[in-house]
Amino acid sequence: MTATLVIGGARSGKSAHAEALAASSGKKVVYLATAHARDAEMAARIALHRQRRQADWISVEEPLALGAAIARWGAPDCVVLVDCLTVWLSNLLFSEQRDYPDVGVIMPPPAFSRERQALLESLEQAGGDVILVSNEVGMGIVPQGAISRWFVDEAGRLNQAVAVRCDCAVLMVAGLPMQLKGAA
Amino acid sequence: MTATLVIGGARSGKSAHAEALAASSGKKVVYLATAHARDAEMAARIALHRQRRQADWISVEEPLALGAAIARWGAPDCVVLVDCLTVWLSNLLFSEQRDYPDVGVIMPPPAFSRERQALLESLEQAGGDVILVSNEVGMGIVPQGAISRWFVDEAGRLNQAVAVRCDCAVLMVAGLPMQLKGAA
Amino acid sequence: MTATLVIGGARSGKSAHAEALAASSGKKVVYLATAHARDAEMAARIALHRQRRQADWISVEEPLALGAAIARWGAPDCVVLVDCLTVWLSNLLFSEQRDYPDVGVIMPPPAFSRERQALLESLEQAGGDVILVSNEVGMGIVPQGAISRWFVDEAGRLNQAVAVRCDCAVLMVAGLPMQLKGAA
Repeated sequence: MTATLVIGGARSGKSAHAEALAASSGKKVVYLATAHARDAEMAARIALHRQRRQADWISVEEPLALGAAIARWGAPDCVVLVDCLTVWLSNLLFSEQRDYPDVGVIMPPPAFSRERQALLESLEQAGGDVILVSNEVGMGIVPQGAISRWFVDEAGRLNQAVAVRCDCAVLMVAGLPMQLKGAA
Repeated sequence: MTATLVIGGARSGKSAHAEALAASSGKKVVYLATAHARDAEMAARIALHRQRRQADWISVEEPLALGAAIARWGAPDCVVLVDCLTVWLSNLLFSEQRDYPDVGVIMPPPAFSRERQALLESLEQAGGDVILVSNEVGMGIVPQGAISRWFVDEAGRLNQAVAVRCDCAVLMVAGLPMQLKGAA
Repeated sequence: MTATLVIGGARSGKSAHAEALAASSGKKVVYLATAHARDAEMAARIALHRQRRQADWISVEEPLALGAAIARWGAPDCVVLVDCLTVWLSNLLFSEQRDYPDVGVIMPPPAFSRERQALLESLEQAGGDVILVSNEVGMGIVPQGAISRWFVDEAGRLNQAVAVRCDCAVLMVAGLPMQLKGAA
């Protein structure tokens, strides 16, 4: 049972690399999408991802209860491919209708710590291989607006918490993997 | 005939590293600049780049037809140094006067796919060594505005398409190269 | 006497890694903080950092005269841990009350080149080990506004100038170190 984190910037080839890892495992692949199509731009992005996936993969959509989904689908003959953690985090942080202050300390919605904990436990107790795709979002200039800084902080903390529970981690740059942890 | 991609963030030492690679090749260097000076800030940036270049290099400016320029200048005793792909992409995407929507799917101008294809073919059929400088722009927070997301996407896709056609690729961080592909 | 640069994005685990390096040195640790708490958000960030530090570390705050502080505290039986260069640069660049233009070339305040020079000399003449934490801020999209581009440029140049004077440098991604320079 191995867990692998594939992290990288936008359009760095994260999903394609994760999909190639899953395909080469020889196991049944459960593709766990966290994105919902809310507008035409997002629909186009999702359609692109779908074209690339193999016909015999099981596709599941889970925007919020990700830990429970990993626990449900994990099995010794399966690879669960989660694409991606950043969209899930965004779904979770903005799952509640509310106004965010422009400065100051922002409190996450109640679901956040519960679902975050469930995700981390699902990795510790995984019944099968898991591959997780995530974005590096913290290497640009510190964003204006407390809400954006908060998102960058939580995404970075999540990536650290996931990486420490993974056996392997790779950073994608221009479609090329750099090994961060574990064997290639 | 080798092609090398030097990728990195702003002020990561990309250009200096690419210029050192070119200078140490022992070949004649053709410096292919993609930037035009449109304002004082850009002029200052270009002047800085110019100071560093060696006197016996051939300097050429080509903001749009980059593939044709690489094909024209490529020769077994030459290194063509392209600085940089991100500015070229920006020239190309914004080569047309038009209004961009703030949300939704954006269509590139007609010249884009033609010139992009010409660039990729020029790398596959290069008559001499090519060194290409490009920016990693996708590791910050997802930008607001569809036009910026579109630029990040196209820059990332371009970097992948170029990297796959290169023999060597390095990521620059704080002036230090990390080998992504090929031998150091 | 070794100098080490720990560079990474926001929430990449830079500070924790630098603190672990300092703690494992077996030497007396002088923690040199460059941040001042000006609002609740910053106070919360500083408090988090403080919780993690060990009780027997010497804590010093120096927002501007960083080179002098490194020179003062450097000693063969000490490690000076500077956290972080990016905040210091920001303190320095914005140490003067003035209006910045939205386009064009921006001139730094007079203190900037003097303090920058003092920092670089303090690394060259360090009386003991130094560990410096810094942010990679240049891998996002080019920011709008001349002042932000200027900050990105100066941060990148500073990181290069520091890295070239360090024996070791690591890039942090998701809490995992990648060796840029020197031995692990």
